[in-house]
Amino acid sequence: MFRNTMPRYEILSADAVGVLDRGWRRIVSEIGVQFAKPEAVELFRKAGQQVDGDVVKFDPEFVLEQVAKAPREFDVQARNPANTVHIGGDDMVFSAVYGSPFVREGEVRRDATLDDFHRLAMLAQSFPQLDSAGGVICEPNDAPLDSRHLDMIYALATLTDKIYMGNVVSGPNAADTITMTSILFGGPDKGRANIEQTPATISLINCNSPLRWDDRMLDAQFEYSAANQAVVLTPFLLMGAMSPVAIPAALAQQLAEALTGIALSQLIRPGCPVIFGSFLSNIDMQSGSPSFGTPESAIGLLCTGQLARHYGLPFRTGGGLNASQTCDAQAAYESLMTLLPTFLAGTNFVMHAAGWLEGGLVSCYEKFIVDVELLRMLRVEFTPLEIDEESLAFGAHEEVGHGGHFLGAAHTMERFRTCFYRPLLSSTANYERWLKQGGKDTTARAGEICAKTLAEYEPPPLDDAVREELQEYVTRRRAELGD
Amino acid sequence: MFRNTMPRYEILSADAVGVLDRGWRRIVSEIGVQFAKPEAVELFRKAGQQVDGDVVKFDPEFVLEQVAKAPREFDVQARNPANTVHIGGDDMVFSAVYGSPFVREGEVRRDATLDDFHRLAMLAQSFPQLDSAGGVICEPNDAPLDSRHLDMIYALATLTDKIYMGNVVSGPNAADTITMTSILFGGPDKGRANIEQTPATISLINCNSPLRWDDRMLDAQFEYSAANQAVVLTPFLLMGAMSPVAIPAALAQQLAEALTGIALSQLIRPGCPVIFGSFLSNIDMQSGSPSFGTPESAIGLLCTGQLARHYGLPFRTGGGLNASQTCDAQAAYESLMTLLPTFLAGTNFVMHAAGWLEGGLVSCYEKFIVDVELLRMLRVEFTPLEIDEESLAFGAHEEVGHGGHFLGAAHTMERFRTCFYRPLLSSTANYERWLKQGGKDTTARAGEICAKTLAEYEPPPLDDAVREELQEYVTRRRAELGD
Repeated sequence: MFRNTMPRYEILSADAVGVLDRGWRRIVSEIGVQFAKPEAVELFRKAGQQVDGDVVKFDPEFVLEQVAKAPREFDVQARNPANTVHIGGDDMVFSAVYGSPFVREGEVRRDATLDDFHRLAMLAQSFPQLDSAGGVICEPNDAPLDSRHLDMIYALATLTDKIYMGNVVSGPNAADTITMTSILFGGPDKGRANIEQTPATISLINCNSPLRWDDRMLDAQFEYSAANQAVVLTPFLLMGAMSPVAIPAALAQQLAEALTGIALSQLIRPGCPVIFGSFLSNIDMQSGSPSFGTPESAIGLLCTGQLARHYGLPFRTGGGLNASQTCDAQAAYESLMTLLPTFLAGTNFVMHAAGWLEGGLVSCYEKFIVDVELLRMLRVEFTPLEIDEESLAFGAHEEVGHGGHFLGAAHTMERFRTCFYRPLLSSTANYERWLKQGGKDTTARAGEICAKTLAEYEPPPLDDAVREELQEYVTRRRAELGD
Repeated sequence: MFRNTMPRYEILSADAVGVLDRGWRRIVSEIGVQFAKPEAVELFRKAGQQVDGDVVKFDPEFVLEQVAKAPREFDVQARNPANTVHIGGDDMVFSAVYGSPFVREGEVRRDATLDDFHRLAMLAQSFPQLDSAGGVICEPNDAPLDSRHLDMIYALATLTDKIYMGNVVSGPNAADTITMTSILFGGPDKGRANIEQTPATISLINCNSPLRWDDRMLDAQFEYSAANQAVVLTPFLLMGAMSPVAIPAALAQQLAEALTGIALSQLIRPGCPVIFGSFLSNIDMQSGSPSFGTPESAIGLLCTGQLARHYGLPFRTGGGLNASQTCDAQAAYESLMTLLPTFLAGTNFVMHAAGWLEGGLVSCYEKFIVDVELLRMLRVEFTPLEIDEESLAFGAHEEVGHGGHFLGAAHTMERFRTCFYRPLLSSTANYERWLKQGGKDTTARAGEICAKTLAEYEPPPLDDAVREELQEYVTRRRAELGD
């Protein structure tokens, strides 16, 4: 796990935080938030909030009282205890791209399949820079619609031994996720008690922004929060479409949505684990399409981190977001324009950290490798420098003197293997050597690393009985679901 | 001009600054610095420093006394007063790639020519994100060696009306730069007085690290500092070759070299303008080639900014540095891995801000456009957000309500043209539209923007008499130099 103990880059003044604080309070109390699930509305009504149809108008102090029940930090356990993560504080947890209907591999862009899902999960398992394959690492379009959540959870549970994200398409899908995870953690009863003690899944609950939480997402939230599984309450804000075209307005709205969603989880089960979610970018007002890796999204990201800390919540932002159609220069600079602020903000949970392309429509194999390289670099960059007398290497200067070189110095010889970051993908080969090696650009090299990684993949060990029990559950539920 | 009023990202503790401060003091006093020019050694000897051959051992307090004579901030005037820049404080000044023997254009990599020099200078003139074309924007290999500095200065003086960098190959070349600049600013006498009053050039004086200042560079430094022209005293540190393989050691060495170089300028002419220079990266210990855009270089960059402020000096770091062979994903992410910290550090003078490829061996046309896009984005990203009640757009929320969209909201309609960053190069086109547009990747689009920019280039107005006087000077000097 990566702990980011570097300073946070905070850009909001105390006054600005005050303005934004008044902003969300006004939204939730005067406009209110819509909850398209009667049980949610009823919980708020019973708790004394003003209800008008499915719109709840909140006392902001009530919201904050609920938010205060949420843990500031918590563990999420993986079936391999070495991969258990901590959410909150200085810890950063990374998961792969989520939700793409398409994949890109080389020059081919096509519908994603279950085989793609498997291969992308294997990639996520292979790189220690990823703490999780995530959930819907791509949409397995060739698997039956009603039961594909079972295929995905089975794949995540067996091909990886890291934490994973639960299905959120419906309440029953969430229940399936919880049952299968219980099987993985000791069986339906013992395992269920185990994961209720320490959550084993994180699930993405998106807001239908502006100011509306939809029924199916809420059904899933009810299941997960009741079972003490972590949920990421995430306003989905593309400024210009789902929020006003001003960053402060989007930030106030984001607070209104996330904090009320978190309040709901705390009414469902006080103390259940939640993450303040953020997915904040903007529409390109010329093309009408979403933009990613924009200056606005970077600013929003930095502010989000500061605000989440202000309200005492672990938070999700960032990732390798970009709008590019191929794994090219734009894909790289937009991704880093998001990922570097992700580290500056000290984000606790990072979705889409590897493989995201084309505004999230595409999970790209080569981009996955590019992003792993970025994560490797940023982990080194955000590791504090140790500066003491010894680190000054005065003896090396005495040895080398004026105008010499340090290649053969004793200080260098002792350290040359580990002194600098060693790239996975980047090439420093001189031009002639690079030509001799085939003159491959970064994306071509990434494709080779991808193939090699998949060829070398070894499945993590899993007890046969557990695997069979999972298979039986999948078979039984698939039959019940009519697929 | 861009003013960066965002917070600086500082990662050194006061203790760490103390260790580094003791580090350079020990180097300059115990090992000393070599100056391969008798006049330089003599100046230091007369000022009471201990001299052993061409090695000067310094009293660190003496060094700091000299450094204190340097201006903390100063102007550099352009022939178009609108392009005059301020060096220091919150101001950031950007110049293009410098020193490349090769160019890359599309799929072709070849020797750079004077025509390339002209075209790259025209690009630099065309984009307001660049305050200067720099100096040797590429090496004009087809121009006569002894007089090509005249061709370069003439091109910079006529094709651009921005500040430029002086030639540093020799003292006479520096003198030519000063004379030609004097002609540009009012003639040999009046112009010379003018630019002595307010400098009109910045010149790059590289250290032959470790701890050696070479004769030709020193000859140029003597010319420029005597004429009150700005110099950037720059330790050239690729850790593993020119400095030990430890960032703190490189930082202490960088201080030793830069501060003693600055002290020399202040002995030549007290109060003359100087910039604390940094060019700090590392050798890839596997390939033996230089790496750029590494975590180590980013950390070094952030520390350098903090140290330069500690010693009260304007500073140079950063740029769009990368080791990639083509304008691909690696070129983009390594460049941003350098450029984003350049903004976080608030760098005052940024060389190589556009066009750098292949470790600086190549000036690349397409990469120039990619870098301009990065600069455009970062300027927006590092502009403080204004947060007040009005920015919360509460009325837009009242108008749109729950689950609606903001595309047609009055607040959006009033602002849609200017509310977000508008890309020069990046595409958000959906896949089908992008295919219809030719399916061009970022580099291909950059090539088109480059061609269009050059086709639309208009030379800045210049008085015919001044142009003739410059031409006459070039013709006469070229004859004198035997070319």
